[in-house]
Amino acid sequence: MKIAVDAMGGDDAPQSPVNGAVLAARELEAEIVLVGDETEIRRGLATHGSPAKISVVHAAEVIGMDEPVATAVRRKRGSSIHVGARLLRDGEVDGFISAGNTGAVMAVTKVIVGTLDGVDRPALAVVLPTMTGRAVVLDVGANVDPKSRQLVQFALIGDQFAKALLDIPTPRIGLLSIGEEEAKGNELVRSVHQVLREQAINFLGNVEARDLYRGGADVVVCDGFTGNILLKTSEAIVEMMWHLMRKEFRRTPAGRIGGLLARGAFRRLGGRVDYQEFGGALLLGVRGLTVIGHGRSTPRAISNAVRLVEGYALRDLNRRVEDALAHLAGAQPPQNGARTETT
Amino acid sequence: MKIAVDAMGGDDAPQSPVNGAVLAARELEAEIVLVGDETEIRRGLATHGSPAKISVVHAAEVIGMDEPVATAVRRKRGSSIHVGARLLRDGEVDGFISAGNTGAVMAVTKVIVGTLDGVDRPALAVVLPTMTGRAVVLDVGANVDPKSRQLVQFALIGDQFAKALLDIPTPRIGLLSIGEEEAKGNELVRSVHQVLREQAINFLGNVEARDLYRGGADVVVCDGFTGNILLKTSEAIVEMMWHLMRKEFRRTPAGRIGGLLARGAFRRLGGRVDYQEFGGALLLGVRGLTVIGHGRSTPRAISNAVRLVEGYALRDLNRRVEDALAHLAGAQPPQNGARTETT
Repeated sequence: MKIAVDAMGGDDAPQSPVNGAVLAARELEAEIVLVGDETEIRRGLATHGSPAKISVVHAAEVIGMDEPVATAVRRKRGSSIHVGARLLRDGEVDGFISAGNTGAVMAVTKVIVGTLDGVDRPALAVVLPTMTGRAVVLDVGANVDPKSRQLVQFALIGDQFAKALLDIPTPRIGLLSIGEEEAKGNELVRSVHQVLREQAINFLGNVEARDLYRGGADVVVCDGFTGNILLKTSEAIVEMMWHLMRKEFRRTPAGRIGGLLARGAFRRLGGRVDYQEFGGALLLGVRGLTVIGHGRSTPRAISNAVRLVEGYALRDLNRRVEDALAHLAGAQPPQNGARTETT
Repeated sequence: MKIAVDAMGGDDAPQSPVNGAVLAARELEAEIVLVGDETEIRRGLATHGSPAKISVVHAAEVIGMDEPVATAVRRKRGSSIHVGARLLRDGEVDGFISAGNTGAVMAVTKVIVGTLDGVDRPALAVVLPTMTGRAVVLDVGANVDPKSRQLVQFALIGDQFAKALLDIPTPRIGLLSIGEEEAKGNELVRSVHQVLREQAINFLGNVEARDLYRGGADVVVCDGFTGNILLKTSEAIVEMMWHLMRKEFRRTPAGRIGGLLARGAFRRLGGRVDYQEFGGALLLGVRGLTVIGHGRSTPRAISNAVRLVEGYALRDLNRRVEDALAHLAGAQPPQNGARTETT
């Protein structure tokens, strides 16, 4: 198996992606294809003695982390993101990992790689830690104003994802809302509720963030705006709790000693609530697997993303998603995903 | 000053509200009017030796915590919420506090008490702890699908609130979105961005949850669906962090001893991230002040709500809000708030 890694994506590029590729090549099965400025990549690899199982594909351009997506996607067709997406489209690699500009990765992948049969638009999914295990939330940012039929597609995609990747035989699917009763929620949520009831999935009805984090759902479906707010709020509160905790522990001698004694507990807690453990957000519903790492992705996060892609590809998830969507209840017949590079 | 407290609202009613009223009457200036089943209230007060500064107004009905709002509001006109709202409308009290069914309190208050001049619909606001202090977020649940002009009104209301109640001379106002660039966000956010630029407020542009919790904004404006998701996600993550922390600290002897030594630090942290410290959510934009406590409100939370109403009324916030809205830029002339009980 071959997996492409965008060497130019992320705040510490190319260093973090290159080091992550080296880590992955050492620990995992897959061969890694680093995509980006060849000179810079070779220089980085040289510090590791030019390890085996890693090849390089040159890309002449770089899309910046904060560059406006629309123009970058159209004008920088030689970018590492474009080159990586073409490798994926042409079957040269089984997955593509980038910690670069999220909007650009989503847009380029969608256009170059194309969506699966029955999928109008891809969704960005994350796997979040809960009190009892973990849960998938989608969409967390690909579609800020989706139609209700897209939310139904996301539910079916999430169902297959949880079955294949989280090994849950009958995933419990919830619709994110502001109250459990069917009538609670905004217009989109209320319009999609009944359609979800009709699908061949284990639909719980509306769920709240509390249910998600207590482990009461395996898949939580929402529009990309709301999902992104949920994700970023979660990260922000974890950050604030660490900050305030450090401050309060340092305030007294007893707190400082207590903090030292409990270092192990803090480290384990940190591991539990760290998004990097899962390797990144997944762009689901496209013809190939794209993982979008956090901009601050460490080499370990990149390597975890490689591990994730290995599992994903091996389980042939995309075929299952197409099968499920072909049996979507109460909807228009599925459309074929665009597969031509038009931008 | 007189403040009405709904004795029938909340999971531990009437015990918690009655005990909260006793606490407030002892510590604060205001006289308390307990509204609800007179026999039950008198029985509760008797255990405190029937304290001074507390009177009782009987209400024959109770709206349940999970009762559907629409029918309850129309059919149970003798409920403690209805009776409390009428006391507020008639000027018998300066504020009304209920930890009851949030939807019912909002709907009844809006209809019976009416909105301020220039306010289309009231907003529910909460004051959240941040790394550096606190910030107001509105709307957190009153309007799930607002128009952009309502979001502009919320920004102006939040501005006045932060000036008067949080003592911030020039509040920094942010629009909650999924990226700081103006083009980021859903349709509503993008449509309101430019209008907010034109107002006589210190508008920061889009902000994310991270900015809010790092202390980068004093007022964060959003639709009620998104705000509710942000609020509940925040609560859920705090709950999860406590849960996982307890678990990890108990796992080893060093962790257990460390946890004991750091008890003070944990207690202070708990105080910092506890919503009850501020007393509840405020229904802003109505002709009178209504505070909606959390369903699990303790007597301390009820008493903090009384303290909040005292400060609010003394500062004559509502007049300032009407003045500000009369000068709202680029909008239709303000409408008069309905003040007749029509449901």
